[in-house]
Amino acid sequence: MINYKIVQEELGNIKQITEEEKIKKLSQDYYYFSPILSEKLADKTGDLVVQPTSEDEVLHIAKICVKHQIPITIRGAGTGNYGQCIPLNGGIILDMTEMNKIQWIKSGIARVEAGVKMSILEREANKQGWELRMIPSTYKIATLGGFIGGGSGGIGSINYGQLRDRGNVHKVKVVTLEKEPRIIELIGDETQQINHAYGTNGIITEIEIPLAPAYNWSDFIVVFDDFMNAVKFGQVLSDSDGIIKKLVSIHAYPIPNYFLALKPYLPQGKSCAFLTIADNSFLPLQELVKEFRGEITYNPQDKQEKPLQLIEFTWNHTTFHARNIDPNLTYLQTFFWNLEQVEKMYKHFGDEVMIHLEFLRVGGKAIPAGLQLVKFTSEKRLNEIIKYHEDNGANIANPHTYILEDGGRKKVEPEQLKFKRMVDPFGLMNQGKMRAWNQ
Amino acid sequence: MINYKIVQEELGNIKQITEEEKIKKLSQDYYYFSPILSEKLADKTGDLVVQPTSEDEVLHIAKICVKHQIPITIRGAGTGNYGQCIPLNGGIILDMTEMNKIQWIKSGIARVEAGVKMSILEREANKQGWELRMIPSTYKIATLGGFIGGGSGGIGSINYGQLRDRGNVHKVKVVTLEKEPRIIELIGDETQQINHAYGTNGIITEIEIPLAPAYNWSDFIVVFDDFMNAVKFGQVLSDSDGIIKKLVSIHAYPIPNYFLALKPYLPQGKSCAFLTIADNSFLPLQELVKEFRGEITYNPQDKQEKPLQLIEFTWNHTTFHARNIDPNLTYLQTFFWNLEQVEKMYKHFGDEVMIHLEFLRVGGKAIPAGLQLVKFTSEKRLNEIIKYHEDNGANIANPHTYILEDGGRKKVEPEQLKFKRMVDPFGLMNQGKMRAWNQ
Repeated sequence: MINYKIVQEELGNIKQITEEEKIKKLSQDYYYFSPILSEKLADKTGDLVVQPTSEDEVLHIAKICVKHQIPITIRGAGTGNYGQCIPLNGGIILDMTEMNKIQWIKSGIARVEAGVKMSILEREANKQGWELRMIPSTYKIATLGGFIGGGSGGIGSINYGQLRDRGNVHKVKVVTLEKEPRIIELIGDETQQINHAYGTNGIITEIEIPLAPAYNWSDFIVVFDDFMNAVKFGQVLSDSDGIIKKLVSIHAYPIPNYFLALKPYLPQGKSCAFLTIADNSFLPLQELVKEFRGEITYNPQDKQEKPLQLIEFTWNHTTFHARNIDPNLTYLQTFFWNLEQVEKMYKHFGDEVMIHLEFLRVGGKAIPAGLQLVKFTSEKRLNEIIKYHEDNGANIANPHTYILEDGGRKKVEPEQLKFKRMVDPFGLMNQGKMRAWNQ
Repeated sequence: MINYKIVQEELGNIKQITEEEKIKKLSQDYYYFSPILSEKLADKTGDLVVQPTSEDEVLHIAKICVKHQIPITIRGAGTGNYGQCIPLNGGIILDMTEMNKIQWIKSGIARVEAGVKMSILEREANKQGWELRMIPSTYKIATLGGFIGGGSGGIGSINYGQLRDRGNVHKVKVVTLEKEPRIIELIGDETQQINHAYGTNGIITEIEIPLAPAYNWSDFIVVFDDFMNAVKFGQVLSDSDGIIKKLVSIHAYPIPNYFLALKPYLPQGKSCAFLTIADNSFLPLQELVKEFRGEITYNPQDKQEKPLQLIEFTWNHTTFHARNIDPNLTYLQTFFWNLEQVEKMYKHFGDEVMIHLEFLRVGGKAIPAGLQLVKFTSEKRLNEIIKYHEDNGANIANPHTYILEDGGRKKVEPEQLKFKRMVDPFGLMNQGKMRAWNQ
């Protein structure tokens, strides 16, 4: 038994949260998007939340965790969807949001503390003509450290691929949970050891990332009578090297019905595309829309209306809005490798699996990634749906598991396991999440 | 017979060049890269060069050409390689280099007169944080109008594709040679009518193009023991969405021997890559080089040396430098659709066809385009070489013809022919170059 009274004393001036309700809240994420995870994770909570403001404090916390063998679970803003930051065995919740300093931005590179909000970093980068290469739809509150630990890509991935792609994360500073905790820096490819590792192998304290040149972007809504026409439009737009975009988000009817706030722009019965386009590419965009018989229903250039934040209706915000209307909905994450796979699933499942696509680059090629909305009936049926996708060559990154390897990559990452053996020899970090370690 | 005395009088104050030697010089381009064209075009020359400084003057010249039925051939800096701007039937040479005003640059779009030098436009765009999306290796003197009329892509095409790709040319103003010449503006897709049409269908006077955000770029030389390793490196670099580049130029040994000025950086026996990389991507570049067992021999970050202008050793400057050493060399232009095709040609032809590749995007995918150096023996053998490539699935854009359709696209562009019927009903423009018109 851990004596938290002693722990709290040893933490000294480090900010602590002890109220049960607050701890409960800070132990959760958006796991409830999944009825499977909902059942498994609803009662999980930490014992104590600590909020360090400096690397020294993190190091001190690490030492205390090792000394008392306390499980430790790291969180940013808790905007993940797979229980990445939910503690399975109680212990300390390390809330990183107070470690949010921007150390410097220069020559298109930013060095920041891990808890910085992506929206704040974006604002500072903008002042120098830069922006983040990719952001999740939750970027207003999400932290950069949380994105690297638990995310994979987002708005901008149509240009820069995913976080795992070489060059998108330059350096990461990590506090270890060794017998004598210390600070180490991972450079370049070494950062793969902690990339999307759910904080199972080191506490990320500092990050150096390359930025993207900032365009003046505008959001457009385009509607289509025929869904597959919208999909083809999305692919061609993604492949159009002369049209600068940041977001190509395609939604099969009836998904648009879930976007109540956008109702004036979404005619009944039509599928839609949400796009973010550079202001020097409006002309060719209009021609492409025409070619695919789409109709632009929201054009920020033409109207006096307040610009819409379309980003917040895409990626997993789509799931969020849909579930607000129908809590029985859940979702999938899918790599479709061609449009034929999309069409086949569309025809096969009908409205049981409503197709939502986000185009992104994988190895230099734009593909449609699915974040389909699924009408949930049972775990058995959900698994049948997943199997049918996989049998047809689409890869599912299962969002209904909190086990690292059972989600996206489907396999043990030997370098992440090896790194965990070094930096977390007692297995204190995010217990139960890395299958390779458990075994 | 055209009475040029009357013509000259009617031209009034418009600048004219009448010295035979100067006219001869201003009637040529780099056609002599091809021994085939060399034979066919060596004696071709215009009768009079005119250098308008305004649209009004162009319109006046057009009227005179129509009135006297004078053949007219438009040129920028004459940096093409296929005789694009060489007059087959004499007549007026319209030198556009004095029409070089930059009208405006704003929001990542530039509006300029057609005769502006690309290097001057680049310098002005840089002041606002922008640069040209793509430039030829001749950009220091080449004009934007000449590039659009006779070029196709270049440094930057690895990001933005080619000029023909939707979105890379926004608007073009054209003076017609109708019975009553007039000025018309082509917008968006309409610009395809004059894109790479060798000035056969309208005099381009003004151009509106979108720009690219300017990075701080640096040029690197990387050498490889094995050519195919260099090629694979080039493909992976091109496909690495997280590494920002502008030029991926690969040269099989012994091509590096022709680059005398770069000798210190090019060890005997090695193939090389010339790269232009954004300064926030040096770190991942180094890791990629290591993965492919390359060696960086020129790194502007490490050395005190004056920066090299590697651009001027790539694209058709490669051909230029090689021919300076061995005038018996000529070249090909090839779309390889995969690395297997490259390897097959490499093994089959050996040093007879030395492989030089420039990676560029075609429809969203990076491919290696060949500008191979060929040891010329006979036209028959050259055609055999071309046929062998085509039989193996590589597409040759034949640089040994001045006929528009026999070069890159291999087919009549109906919209270009239709447009010519409208704007040049008397067939005065660049006579003999558009096969569809000739027939």
